[in-house]
Order: sequence, then structure tokens, then C-alpha cells
Amino acid sequence: MKTSLDCLVCFMRQARSLGLHTSTDTTIRRQLLDETGRFITSVDTDLTPPENAGRLYPILAKFLGTPDPYAQLKEESNALALSLRDDIRQQIEQADDPLRAAVRVAIAGNVIDYGALHSFDAAETMRNCFARDFVIDDYPALRQAVSAKGQKVLYLSDNSGEIVFDGLLIEQLQRLGCHVTTAVRESPIINDATLADARACGLDQLCPVISSGTASSGTVLSQCSKKFLDHFYAADLIISKGMGNFESLSDQAEPLFFLLTVKCAEVARCIQAKRELEPELLQGKGEMVLLGQQL
Amino acid sequence: MKTSLDCLVCFMRQARSLGLHTSTDTTIRRQLLDETGRFITSVDTDLTPPENAGRLYPILAKFLGTPDPYAQLKEESNALALSLRDDIRQQIEQADDPLRAAVRVAIAGNVIDYGALHSFDAAETMRNCFARDFVIDDYPALRQAVSAKGQKVLYLSDNSGEIVFDGLLIEQLQRLGCHVTTAVRESPIINDATLADARACGLDQLCPVISSGTASSGTVLSQCSKKFLDHFYAADLIISKGMGNFESLSDQAEPLFFLLTVKCAEVARCIQAKRELEPELLQGKGEMVLLGQQL
Repeated sequence: MKTSLDCLVCFMRQARSLGLHTSTDTTIRRQLLDETGRFITSVDTDLTPPENAGRLYPILAKFLGTPDPYAQLKEESNALALSLRDDIRQQIEQADDPLRAAVRVAIAGNVIDYGALHSFDAAETMRNCFARDFVIDDYPALRQAVSAKGQKVLYLSDNSGEIVFDGLLIEQLQRLGCHVTTAVRESPIINDATLADARACGLDQLCPVISSGTASSGTVLSQCSKKFLDHFYAADLIISKGMGNFESLSDQAEPLFFLLTVKCAEVARCIQAKRELEPELLQGKGEMVLLGQQL
Repeated sequence: MKTSLDCLVCFMRQARSLGLHTSTDTTIRRQLLDETGRFITSVDTDLTPPENAGRLYPILAKFLGTPDPYAQLKEESNALALSLRDDIRQQIEQADDPLRAAVRVAIAGNVIDYGALHSFDAAETMRNCFARDFVIDDYPALRQAVSAKGQKVLYLSDNSGEIVFDGLLIEQLQRLGCHVTTAVRESPIINDATLADARACGLDQLCPVISSGTASSGTVLSQCSKKFLDHFYAADLIISKGMGNFESLSDQAEPLFFLLTVKCAEVARCIQAKRELEPELLQGKGEMVLLGQQL
């Protein structure tokens, strides 16, 4: 998915959000907007949004004087998600179809996204996710794909906090005999999960965790490490979480399943086009989507 | 009201909206965003938003190759409003309190604002306005102020289309014996009404129409003509329509009544502060407000 002109407005919005979340200094908050204003002219709309954002965030981090401005919020997200984990695991295990329930939880966990949302109530969202409808629901195909014996699954994680709920889905995949490897970002960008977050949430105790080799807030294959690409191309299926991974992989031919809440109109439009959906059905207001790339 | 950092994001959003409304050429649409990006660093947050926007829009109009990029949309707004006028006048005249009904209509007419809104259904809004609650409602004070014999009222108009409904309120004010003068912008900015629009909507047949002397999308007194200022300071009361006029006059001490639908969170916050409102009550999502400055 290419960067649209709406994304240019969103980069400004993200710079404002970054300032509000990470600094109380109005001068610094202003600098973030000024730098983003200057950056706008250099945006390459032939690239994906994560490729452009991957150039912007390091510029802004410099002004904030830290490579990881969302560090504290990431810690808080991890702690919040961990505090909810046991209850939610119990609900999954008591469900008629635990895999289905875990898929719901993993998608709802994607609401924790400081890059795209202004405010949210993660705990409330997690409580409500069992009753919500999906706008696109390729669960039967996912269920079938993971039910074959010993499938190699590459799980592309997205945000801190959210990875706790990814862990609950990975548990269910493992029960079905899948061999799961989880990928995280190489270094901090927005609130995306890194190896440190995976460890903080115990994901490394559950399955092998590798880095994508890139700090982009998506999976930009041209920037990924050889190790990651080996896993990517060898996987029987790839579960891709969140908008950034979708934005960077939406044109790939691999057996991808995109699990996300859609929080922007551009991503909504791209998904609409794939499935010839009515625009009213998918507006980018937090709708839950499970989209099989090859379906 | 000063320009906030949220306004900087909004300037980008407005540049995007301008491109979408006035050009099908992606290169031009991109140029508008690039120019606005460059402009961001020069925004003076000690000035009001209309003062800063008043510098931005002429820059963007140059790229569009026209001093009045919204000309067609303004014509359409005027025509739409004129097509609704007779029906709405009838509803006003049949109301128990025609002045009250006309105030409702004038405020609801403020929904026609290409600068602040992405999409709207003006006709629907006008039909529904009689049943909607006001978040702030200083109508009793306005009623009292205009009921004194022969009051000199300066009516600061805002947008094209909307001025048709302003005309219906002016009719009611005249019935109460008020001497009304209407002010419009000196030259085109966004979809703000100018003398040409006032004529197209027959406002000049109803009352004297003067220019503010400035092309700012508000009433920036330091830029206004002497003729306008004479009216401004001599008026017994001033009716100020819309957000731009509020943003530029919110700190003035004159006997102002602000009639507007609140379509942005910053204006909402400013009004909240004046009245110590709970934030939930006024979020900038199109709420109707009648605010007496001196109350």
C-alpha cells in the first residue's frame, strides 16, 4: 500500500500526538511539528507509509533527546496487558472454540496503538471483544490453514502490550501443533514491540522470538535481515498483526493472514478495494478484520 | 484565542481538504500539502488562527492559480441555501417565538463550512435544527438586548450559503426595530461570504452590507478598515457568526453574541474555559452555541 496524501496530514497528527505523550515542553512540542512540516516535502508517495514514517520518527526522537520516546508508555501497556492476561486466558479456554476466541483477543489487542489513536480504553476493549462482529472474517480459512500437522507459522507482532494477547493466540496455535516463531522490531519505533518488550511479556518463554532486522513500524522486506527473510519465505503461513505490517505487506503474494483493528481511512480503503466492500462497512474507526491475503 | 499546536495539524488537514475540493490533479494536491508543511514553521502561535490562516490561504490559492478556489462550492452553497429559504422562513414565522426559531436557523446554517468540516448534509441539518439542544444558550440575554428600541446591530457574517439563513434572522431583528448592518469579508478566503455572495443571496436588499476590509477568515480588528471599525465600536450589540469570528474576537470586551456550531476541539476548549463547562458537554462535534461575551 502506497503512502497517500492523507498520510501526510496523519504524519502531522502523529507528531502532535508524540509531543503530547512524551514532553510537557511546548517548545519541544512545536519543534516536532516544525520538523514534520519540513519533512512533508520529502515524503515519497511511491513508498509505503511505514517506510516514510521510518524516516520521520528518528528525526523526531532526536528532538526529544531519546531513541525511545514511548518507553514509559510501552512499559505501561505491557503492564496493563499482563494484568488482564490470566482472566482473558480463562475466557479463551472456556470458549466453545478457543482458537476463535484467541483470534478475537489478538485482534482486539491491536487497539493499543499510540501511533494511530488519540485515546482508548484498552481494558474495556478487551472485555468487549468477545461480542463484536468482524467486518471481514476469514477465520474458517485460517482455522483450516493452521490445522494441518506441524505448520511453520511466522507471527509478525505489532505493538507493546498487544504482544501479551498475541501470546494467548500463540498458545492456541501451539496446541494445534503449529511451530510458531514471533518477529518483533529491531529497535524502538513508536510503541512497536521490540525484543525487550517480548521478554518483558514472557513471549520468549513461549516461542522463538526474532527481530525483523528493521526499526520500521511495519515489515519493509527490503530492509529486513536475511534471518528474518529466511523465516518469512519458509513459513507455511504468516500471521500479520496491525496496520503497519498490513501497509507494508498488502501487495505480497505469500500466505498471509492480516489480523488488525482498522484505525485509519486509508487502510480501510485499501481493504475495501481488495474485497469490493461497501465503504460504510469499513471506515477505519476500529473495525475488527481477519483478512486472508490469498482468498 | 491564540493559535494552538493542534491548529498546525488542522492547517495541514485544511490544505488536504482544499486540494480535494478544488483540484483533480494529484501534483497540485501534493504541492498544497508541501507548501503548508513549509508554512508550519512560520506560524505565530501568539496570533489568532484566522491571522495565521490569512497568510496561508493566499499562498495556496497561488498554486491553484485562482484567488477564489472555492468559487464554485460557494455558488452551490448559496443556491442550496436559497432553495431552502422559503420553507424555513415559513417555519420561523409559524413558531411560537420567531426570533428564537431564527436564531436556531442562523446557528445551524453555520454547519456549511468547508474549512472545518469534511462532509455535511446541510439540508438535513437545517431540517433538524428546530429540535436540537444548545450547549450554551444565552438567548434570554440576546432577546433582551435586541428588544430595546432602535438598537444598532452589527451582524458579522461567516460563510456563503449560511448568509441566506443570517438573512432570516436579520428579518426578525428588523421586526423588533433593530437597525442591522451586515459585514462580509473584503475578498475571498475559503468559503467565507463576500459582497458578491451577499448580493447573490439578496442580503443587500435587506440591510446595508459593508466589508470588514480584510480577507482574513475572521474579524482581525487590526486589519479591518476604518469604516468597519466605526460600525464595530458604535454598535449597541454585535452578532458574530461562526468559528473564525469567535477565534479572532473571543478576547474583546464589546457587547458580542457569538452564534456558532462548534466544529473543532480548540474552539470547544476555549468556550469551555469561559463557562467552566464539563469537557464532555462541548467536544467540537457540531454543537450549537449562543454565547454572550459579557455574561
